Amino acid sequence: MSQPIIFYDIPSTAAGCAWSPNTWRIRYALNFKDLAYKTTWVEYPDIESVCKEIGAEPSMIRKNGSPYYSLPVIHDPNTGAVVSDSARIADYLDATYPDTPVLTPAGTHTLQKAFQAAFDSATNPVIPYIMPAVARILRPRSEEYFVRTREASFKQKLTEMEPTGEAHETAWKELQAGYGKISGWMKEGDSFVMGNTISFADLLIAGELQWCMKGFGAESEKWKDMLTWHGGRWAKLIDDLKKYEGPVEEMPN
Amino acid sequence: MSQPIIFYDIPSTAAGCAWSPNTWRIRYALNFKDLAYKTTWVEYPDIESVCKEIGAEPSMIRKNGSPYYSLPVIHDPNTGAVVSDSARIADYLDATYPDTPVLTPAGTHTLQKAFQAAFDSATNPVIPYIMPAVARILRPRSEEYFVRTREASFKQKLTEMEPTGEAHETAWKELQAGYGKISGWMKEGDSFVMGNTISFADLLIAGELQWCMKGFGAESEKWKDMLTWHGGRWAKLIDDLKKYEGPVEEMPN
Repeated sequence: MSQPIIFYDIPSTAAGCAWSPNTWRIRYALNFKDLAYKTTWVEYPDIESVCKEIGAEPSMIRKNGSPYYSLPVIHDPNTGAVVSDSARIADYLDATYPDTPVLTPAGTHTLQKAFQAAFDSATNPVIPYIMPAVARILRPRSEEYFVRTREASFKQKLTEMEPTGEAHETAWKELQAGYGKISGWMKEGDSFVMGNTISFADLLIAGELQWCMKGFGAESEKWKDMLTWHGGRWAKLIDDLKKYEGPVEEMPN
Repeated sequence: MSQPIIFYDIPSTAAGCAWSPNTWRIRYALNFKDLAYKTTWVEYPDIESVCKEIGAEPSMIRKNGSPYYSLPVIHDPNTGAVVSDSARIADYLDATYPDTPVLTPAGTHTLQKAFQAAFDSATNPVIPYIMPAVARILRPRSEEYFVRTREASFKQKLTEMEPTGEAHETAWKELQAGYGKISGWMKEGDSFVMGNTISFADLLIAGELQWCMKGFGAESEKWKDMLTWHGGRWAKLIDDLKKYEGPVEEMPN
């Protein structure tokens, strides 16, 4: 490997710029594997055109048949490969750089996918909190795009989405219970999903935690509360993975 | 190990008697590990009293605080242990008989739990089909108990639960799509969730397939349809695990 991988990510105004749970998985993965990379920051309204320009496939096809382009995408100049979708990128990195630490230990391919489905389902109550929070940290062009497309998708104003009062009490406890389900599946002394071995499942969790930390703010009540959950298990995870966050990226102009 | 494990299961009128997805996991597990066992058949209305008599813990505590007793339960006369709940039994068997094939390969504890949650969620559309089907194969005392308790729980007559006409077309496709999700997570040539290695996840799937085969009937349209799904992947799984079904048990009096 002689040239850095180009890693496409979405900027924000938060410290360190990176905030997206999906791109964080790959940022962590690149650092975990100690692969050289540099970030190209892409604002939301430019994602589709940038993907088409570099020949990145859509990450999924919508039910109406139209392609959906999203980040992360990587372009690896060492092989010429352009890969979309965090799970496919993880598989690509394991296959292309077999001498680096693996994201998907042998035999766990299907189990890692199942973990993602179970984790997404368990932590779904974060949505009405995180959507308006993300809108607040995006830069203007992305913010306008994000608010417009998410309001169309959720059929609700983002500013009216966050539960308040009693609804907040209930919904926040549901989110905690969702993380509690994951914690309950883990053995007591285990730092990571696979025990003492880091795998892609941990990067999913940590990416989601980054989303909350950046969206709510590192000094917010919400984030500070999350750090106390389940014996500090999530605080420890973020801390254990700190060395794989990489350098703070310079803000794009 | 000198004495057979006592394995508590629920009888039916179907061929081979065993039908419950939860107990099938452990029946498969005992055979997979080649551990000697004998079945004690318990009709539904007797489960709670039998559990209390042998000192089996409830498998869960209901939201209202009352204990819920269910099978499988095992009593291992070699250690004196009485263990409830299929996941806990699997852990017990791996820990107590470490020289037998493992159900939960090292490091996959949490991933196996996540698989169970994701699998249950994906295949949930089976419920309105399987509930009335199970009622039809139970023996009279269990049937009366099953119908009464399930109707209270689902707030619906079991005889009115099964989708028909257009609703059936949609619901049956949803069930197929649920299995399709699991299949999509597996690599193309893989026979088992972990590739070529059998693990508890496969016994979950096969237990659910036994439920369908026994409930719908081995000659039914529904079961024959399921055998064709996803390139015959599920037909092959049942076939690959046939050697772990154990002998056909004698019907209790």
